[in-house]
Amino acid sequence: MFIKEGIIASPGIAIARALIYEKADVKVSADHYEDSDAEIKKFKQALDKSQSQLEEIRLKTVSELGKEEAAIFEAHEMILQDPEFVESVRVEIADNKVGAAYAVQIVTDRLVILFEQMNDPYFSARAADVKDVGNRVRNNILGIVRADLSKLKEDVIIIADDLAPSDTALMDKRKVRGFATNIGSRTSHTAIMARSLEIPAVLGLSDIDQKVNTGEMIILDGLNGRVTVNPDRYQIKEAEEDQRKYQAHLKELERIKDLEAITLDGHQVELVGNIGEPADIQGVLKNGGTGIGLYRTEFLYMNSDTMPGEDKQMAAYRSVLEAFPDGPVIIRTMDIGGDKKLPYLPLDDELNPFLGLRAIRLCFKEIKLLKTQLRAILRASVYGNAYIMFPMISNVDEVRQAKKILTACMAELDALQIAYRKDVKVGVMIEIPSAAITADIIAKEVDFFSIGTNDLCQYTIAVDRMNQAVSYLYDPFNPAILRLVKQVIQASENQPGLFTGMCGEMAGDPLATLLLLGLGLHEFSMSALSIPQVKKIIRNVRYQDAKKIAAEALTLETGVAVMAHVLESMKKLKIEI
Amino acid sequence: MFIKEGIIASPGIAIARALIYEKADVKVSADHYEDSDAEIKKFKQALDKSQSQLEEIRLKTVSELGKEEAAIFEAHEMILQDPEFVESVRVEIADNKVGAAYAVQIVTDRLVILFEQMNDPYFSARAADVKDVGNRVRNNILGIVRADLSKLKEDVIIIADDLAPSDTALMDKRKVRGFATNIGSRTSHTAIMARSLEIPAVLGLSDIDQKVNTGEMIILDGLNGRVTVNPDRYQIKEAEEDQRKYQAHLKELERIKDLEAITLDGHQVELVGNIGEPADIQGVLKNGGTGIGLYRTEFLYMNSDTMPGEDKQMAAYRSVLEAFPDGPVIIRTMDIGGDKKLPYLPLDDELNPFLGLRAIRLCFKEIKLLKTQLRAILRASVYGNAYIMFPMISNVDEVRQAKKILTACMAELDALQIAYRKDVKVGVMIEIPSAAITADIIAKEVDFFSIGTNDLCQYTIAVDRMNQAVSYLYDPFNPAILRLVKQVIQASENQPGLFTGMCGEMAGDPLATLLLLGLGLHEFSMSALSIPQVKKIIRNVRYQDAKKIAAEALTLETGVAVMAHVLESMKKLKIEI
Repeated sequence: MFIKEGIIASPGIAIARALIYEKADVKVSADHYEDSDAEIKKFKQALDKSQSQLEEIRLKTVSELGKEEAAIFEAHEMILQDPEFVESVRVEIADNKVGAAYAVQIVTDRLVILFEQMNDPYFSARAADVKDVGNRVRNNILGIVRADLSKLKEDVIIIADDLAPSDTALMDKRKVRGFATNIGSRTSHTAIMARSLEIPAVLGLSDIDQKVNTGEMIILDGLNGRVTVNPDRYQIKEAEEDQRKYQAHLKELERIKDLEAITLDGHQVELVGNIGEPADIQGVLKNGGTGIGLYRTEFLYMNSDTMPGEDKQMAAYRSVLEAFPDGPVIIRTMDIGGDKKLPYLPLDDELNPFLGLRAIRLCFKEIKLLKTQLRAILRASVYGNAYIMFPMISNVDEVRQAKKILTACMAELDALQIAYRKDVKVGVMIEIPSAAITADIIAKEVDFFSIGTNDLCQYTIAVDRMNQAVSYLYDPFNPAILRLVKQVIQASENQPGLFTGMCGEMAGDPLATLLLLGLGLHEFSMSALSIPQVKKIIRNVRYQDAKKIAAEALTLETGVAVMAHVLESMKKLKIEI
Repeated sequence: MFIKEGIIASPGIAIARALIYEKADVKVSADHYEDSDAEIKKFKQALDKSQSQLEEIRLKTVSELGKEEAAIFEAHEMILQDPEFVESVRVEIADNKVGAAYAVQIVTDRLVILFEQMNDPYFSARAADVKDVGNRVRNNILGIVRADLSKLKEDVIIIADDLAPSDTALMDKRKVRGFATNIGSRTSHTAIMARSLEIPAVLGLSDIDQKVNTGEMIILDGLNGRVTVNPDRYQIKEAEEDQRKYQAHLKELERIKDLEAITLDGHQVELVGNIGEPADIQGVLKNGGTGIGLYRTEFLYMNSDTMPGEDKQMAAYRSVLEAFPDGPVIIRTMDIGGDKKLPYLPLDDELNPFLGLRAIRLCFKEIKLLKTQLRAILRASVYGNAYIMFPMISNVDEVRQAKKILTACMAELDALQIAYRKDVKVGVMIEIPSAAITADIIAKEVDFFSIGTNDLCQYTIAVDRMNQAVSYLYDPFNPAILRLVKQVIQASENQPGLFTGMCGEMAGDPLATLLLLGLGLHEFSMSALSIPQVKKIIRNVRYQDAKKIAAEALTLETGVAVMAHVLESMKKLKIEI
């Protein structure tokens, strides 16, 4: 028996036998191969085989999951057909007299490094695709046959170096109980897949695929990030008990799902969801969200090869609005730029993209684009309670300018006698410090604020949270952030009819719930899965107590002290998370 | 007669004849040259000639200006000898059968684009060097002889596409009255050179070198950014009058240089200088600065091939301290990282360097480096009034950590019985919004604040001011910035013994003087040349009036309104700038 600890990527507890899915280090030698023609032929045959494998995966995915999910395999097929890839391998074989597998390996490695160096989330994802395809071709040359995850006989926990979309696409989801991998993070494909399947995953276990054999018993504890290999029967018993407890916890969350988000002393707030596309609505409904606090419309643009037209946009917005006939649907105009690029909208490289041409700033340069979106939202507005939200506002002039453009769009629709809701609410993201500091000025121009804590923290503390060298400074509990949140809420309280919401990750962090509630936050918008837990906390506290906790937090000097104060307070009030 | 308008790069008015220095477009053809060997020989000869020209320039510069000024020409010689440059040109000639000049041109262009794309101020400067050297080699191949600026017979205004260090190094400075160029910015070499020579310069005139002929009369108005070509005699008379007025203005500034920075009603503030190296002291003394508000020690590191040792640093700090026996000398620990790199301290590339591992953050990872610097400052402290300042502080924990390291350095010196001033003052830069917002907390740990408005603006408004697409948002008059400045000053006023200074560009902006004075700023630190003008304003206003102006500014909603209010107030009080 031994235990390994890793990154918590998806919650839950699984007890099942291990299935090792491809060892990490397939070694290919740099041996001399005189007969280049024979190697090139091997390579070409492997390409054909890979092509038909991918085609099969793609078709199965289309029929099982839909066209959008299958798009990635089209991209994979395109890599196979990429003349640069094919030609580079050919040259490698012919000029350096190496074997086909070795040539594929080094060309793949070179491309992966190239993409990774671009230091851009989009290209990092491309790097993973190239690696996936390169490994497939190499394995086909070497005759390595991967375990077929589509035909599993018993329940298994899959152990692997890492899992790629092509690995999980055809997997028999009824038999897979969990994932344990060498590498990966909370945002890697494996983690996302595990969460969407609602099975536990522990990643970053460094060499788990070398330490475990297929058929060995495993306890996979996704709540604590722990893998127990070959547990004794007492450990299994304990794990089963933990499983029962976790199920009971999920049931409890399920029970309160449709109850109101109201404190013990009757103060009600709104719990709503963040979504990226209409497909995400289900999750919000399932978890008891009463509306949408942040609809990130940029995915509509990013998942498209051309600029999505007014009709296409309007259809997407309408489908979301119709799903929430009673609740608000806050549609944020597109936040493109920074690390989010569009293939059909070329943007200059920037030295500091987070401080550059993004979101509303870009929209002011591409007004046609903004107007198309605003008209689409206005046209959709008749189908529900649409709220329009402008991102990356830094001063009141920008709010006025954005509203002027909105008014122009309304006039255009009037001229065409197209219906829209004239009382559509207009608000702004508060995610730039200058906007938070001047919230009282901006308040006179809008119907609501939504605090974007992720960016607000990054700018206020001058830290890129994706930069591991400094991410330790990123802290939403930093007293400066609490003061800004307080200041924004106060500004909205002083302006009749205005409300403040929050759509950054802090809104869904159960450790922040008491503070935000106590500071007077009206609307909490978060990823669907966080809603039940935050609701549970709100339903178990008195508003008066939360206010006291928040007031005391505002007197503290450091983020660590604030966090300690919150934990202490929750313990005192017997609130569990 | 015609007038062209450009960028104001250096003030003053000059009236003299034009000297056209190399037309911009030397055209080289892509003609076919069958005899590659002959072209390669031409190229090699041009290389040798360029080498001896640069050697001559370098030696003259060493003897006239010193070794440091000449270092750039060593860099140029290294480009000439760079095997990649030489080999690329050879391959271009041999493989593509083009002429030597064309080959040099396209290899140079290619390198320049490569460097420019790196989007890094260091490499942009390298791009200019490569261009300078490439053009020299090309001209030597083509037999183009540049005007010799070292032997001028009469006073001239130099007209050029752009001026490189190698152009201005040997220039006869007694005869050159001004510069007018096609391209360039306030921070280009031409602008810097003009300001250090105290002659006017107007840049960015697009095609001035094509519109003017050598010998034509020119009025170069560096106060208004205007070039008048072939003026009539009334225009010349008027320009002469403007010259007299400007001289009188300079005299007036000279007159008040040694007077105190005190308002009409007796409120005194401190006007001090920002410096990058000991050589800058002269400018501060000459302009009446009473101390140093910001000694940017990073230049000590950046101008060195290896990490400067404790003794070398201590000597530099000592020389600055001894120059100001009465005034304060605020030494900022190194602000390396971000856009400032050291050749001997490899740092990872960052997606958003301004939000990354810089300054104190880097020092906390490289504690030895910080300790060497702190010991050097402590040792120098016995020679004057040293103040230690930590940059990029974002929370009070960092202040405590920095002070702990300082205490450790003191203990080390104590153990070695090395003298230092135990009462050395310790302060922090307030340049990150979270530090400004929590200034009251940080105040308990320090002796002074210095507000760095450049970074504070960038982070507060989330804008990289070097990024032209968004730099319009960068505005120190943004109400959010004024509120933060007010908040920081108030925090220091509430803490006995604490004072607040400012060392960002805003401190030297005459349009901001009344506001900052009225907000209660105690110490204004700026580039030496700005000191007399700011002093003149302070000496011509009542503190009570400035306070009223600032209080009213704090009620305004936009940066534009604040600016208008300031201009209006200055007009009312008859304060000129």
